[in-house]
Amino acid sequence: MRCLIPAAGRGSRLARVAEPKPLAPLLGVPLVERVIRTAARAGVREFCVTLGHRAGSLRRHLGQLAGRLGVAIRCVDNPDWEAGNGTSVLAARACLGEGPFLILMADHLVDECTVRALVRRAEAPDVPDLLLAVDTDLSNPLVDREDVTRVRLEGGRITAIGKGLEGAHGYDTGAFLAGPALYAAVERAWRGGGDASLTGAVRELAAEGRAAALDLRREVAADAFWIDVDDPAALRRAEEALVGRLRGKATDGPVSRWLNRPLSIRLTRQLARLPVTPNQLTLATFALGCLAAAVLALPGHLALATGGLLAQASSVLDGCDGELARLRLEESDFGGWLDAVLDRYADGFLLAGLTWHVYAASGAAAHLLLGLLAVTGSFALSYTADKYDGLMRARFGRGGTWRLGRDVRVFIVFVGALLDTALAALALVAALMNAEVVRRIWVARQAAAAA
Amino acid sequence: MRCLIPAAGRGSRLARVAEPKPLAPLLGVPLVERVIRTAARAGVREFCVTLGHRAGSLRRHLGQLAGRLGVAIRCVDNPDWEAGNGTSVLAARACLGEGPFLILMADHLVDECTVRALVRRAEAPDVPDLLLAVDTDLSNPLVDREDVTRVRLEGGRITAIGKGLEGAHGYDTGAFLAGPALYAAVERAWRGGGDASLTGAVRELAAEGRAAALDLRREVAADAFWIDVDDPAALRRAEEALVGRLRGKATDGPVSRWLNRPLSIRLTRQLARLPVTPNQLTLATFALGCLAAAVLALPGHLALATGGLLAQASSVLDGCDGELARLRLEESDFGGWLDAVLDRYADGFLLAGLTWHVYAASGAAAHLLLGLLAVTGSFALSYTADKYDGLMRARFGRGGTWRLGRDVRVFIVFVGALLDTALAALALVAALMNAEVVRRIWVARQAAAAA
Repeated sequence: MRCLIPAAGRGSRLARVAEPKPLAPLLGVPLVERVIRTAARAGVREFCVTLGHRAGSLRRHLGQLAGRLGVAIRCVDNPDWEAGNGTSVLAARACLGEGPFLILMADHLVDECTVRALVRRAEAPDVPDLLLAVDTDLSNPLVDREDVTRVRLEGGRITAIGKGLEGAHGYDTGAFLAGPALYAAVERAWRGGGDASLTGAVRELAAEGRAAALDLRREVAADAFWIDVDDPAALRRAEEALVGRLRGKATDGPVSRWLNRPLSIRLTRQLARLPVTPNQLTLATFALGCLAAAVLALPGHLALATGGLLAQASSVLDGCDGELARLRLEESDFGGWLDAVLDRYADGFLLAGLTWHVYAASGAAAHLLLGLLAVTGSFALSYTADKYDGLMRARFGRGGTWRLGRDVRVFIVFVGALLDTALAALALVAALMNAEVVRRIWVARQAAAAA
Repeated sequence: MRCLIPAAGRGSRLARVAEPKPLAPLLGVPLVERVIRTAARAGVREFCVTLGHRAGSLRRHLGQLAGRLGVAIRCVDNPDWEAGNGTSVLAARACLGEGPFLILMADHLVDECTVRALVRRAEAPDVPDLLLAVDTDLSNPLVDREDVTRVRLEGGRITAIGKGLEGAHGYDTGAFLAGPALYAAVERAWRGGGDASLTGAVRELAAEGRAAALDLRREVAADAFWIDVDDPAALRRAEEALVGRLRGKATDGPVSRWLNRPLSIRLTRQLARLPVTPNQLTLATFALGCLAAAVLALPGHLALATGGLLAQASSVLDGCDGELARLRLEESDFGGWLDAVLDRYADGFLLAGLTWHVYAASGAAAHLLLGLLAVTGSFALSYTADKYDGLMRARFGRGGTWRLGRDVRVFIVFVGALLDTALAALALVAALMNAEVVRRIWVARQAAAAA
């Protein structure tokens, strides 16, 4: 499956932010890179990008991106780009071949599921000559009503398309599946009618009853996201919307859900503007955890309280790496795994710091034993998490709300440190973690007996 | 897929061991239970067992077994059992129905893969009227040449079958796939020829060219196991063979491979005679590990050496639960998981015991920190094992020979304790475990970059 991305235009309304427009950064990732990352995640491996205005910098960026994503990106010069974006289809014809292909606008962001739905239609029998993803939610707050291209529909076909259209049923999302019939349609609209836009070509096909619509709301997902980023205001709206779509993970525990996650999402929004990668954030979070452990180990309430505060701060920051990766479409298995492994070290160090604080004050060996139980129970809890979460998903389709994990553990240390009750916090962690491991063994045993 | 198990006969040669013969225990599991467990693992869910001699005790055992395995086992009385085992086919006709069915002898043990191969043939087009799994390895040392039923083959068909057969090409393994044509064949052989044995019925079908052979060596597996257990000598041979087939796991480290596993297999062979379950062994191993930790923590070289010896003993015993489960066909996900979780606790306790031994003698807080690093590194190593083993399998098709894990860790503690160099052992564990975690992170990062 090949994918055409027309990226030749000027995008004058975003010129203050970036030139050419496809390189305008949204939460640290250029628009065209977002489009390509989204399509690559939906399984698309070959891209043709048409260049016109300021082709050089775009070509360099795409060359690097292809290497990073392991996809093929061919850049095609479109000498006629100033006539309209339909000319890009003709310029890319040799690169696209004679099979069906996708078209994604460089400035229209869509969801991975929308691209997948178009690809699926290309693999099914009876591929339409043109299939346009249409947003039938006429009150979508992300749509700029002044500027959006509207469509009229009848029985799944597009009957009319245009910017000022009256009585429209939906909006053009800029994501298409097209067949080779589109080449002739562009020719006709351009040479015949003087309209070299893609919209003109769609209008040609619609007049012949050959332009179908994919209903975004009914055929893809009721909450599918898309936005046309034309000006700084739309860029802000898009940023707002993407951050707003960040949610906690299904396995978030109560402290994460109601305290850490709301804070970390706010923080991630700010971090997204900085040139920091998710893995760097993971390392910074770990360093903060180590610092918290060292401070916790010092004598006195002030050190204890400071260490507890730093520990809770690292627990909040611990959500940011994953959030940033999701915002930037950069999630990776390795990143998630590294985060989990370093969290285990930070867990051990934090509880060791707290244990030393208690032991140094009391000199009681029993307090070291308590610390050992807290560390061992915490590790065992993480070690059993995959199995337990899998069982919960299989039974309830989600994790439990009251899942006991790292968020609760660090929060107990935090509160215990503030209240100067380090020993009580340590004892509570040891008791809760180990009791929960025993409970999980029990749950797994019941599940095995029932299977 | 239904499975007939003729279990009506007397089995006089095993009468000293158990009556009826299908209940003769092999490594703690009755023969007929082994046959049913093997078939259940191959996906068979419905069994018809024909009863004759001493039906009562067999019926009770099968009733309990059906509940434990979650399969249906219908017991059918065979009033004609003394005439020959072919009569069991007729007695079970109502229970078996008119589709193809499996026949497994209650006293012939076969591998799961052999049953799977027969089931696959039943699901393919052109199901033969009879398909007998035939061992074409004429030098198979497990075969009792005095007593075995031999077959002559021609182009995949059985041309002759019988005990004293000259010029035979293979041995009857007692595992069949049969169709309803077998009912008439038994009738003909019994009423017509006076031979009510299954062999007689196969001979009838062979004469009509309707008896096919499944070549165990070429069509199933070159090392597929089977044995006919007729007398105490065969029972001993079977025990020997099953124990001999126990191997280490692909992820066994060097100490496990060359020290622990050879010892644990010897031990498991003895344990198999006792009424102990694999999960009970897991708990006993954990208890021994806790005891070792407590003894390690005591002052003096004698305590240290004893603790080290107990720790190494628990490391050897740690292999037995899995081996016993495999010998008894009782492996379970839960069992393996419980073993892993308790190993993590034992790990933490052992290293804590060693740490306390060192710290109590020196009073140096740095030694506690070293202990913390050893515990944390050990946990992190276990935590990263799944990921690392998966990467190694994907790259090399197996685990690395020099895999660093629990076996090496405990062995270092053992040697350090014997040599009275507890501090050096602790430092070595801390250094090795954490260095290996860092190496694994590096390996995972490289693999992610290459993907």
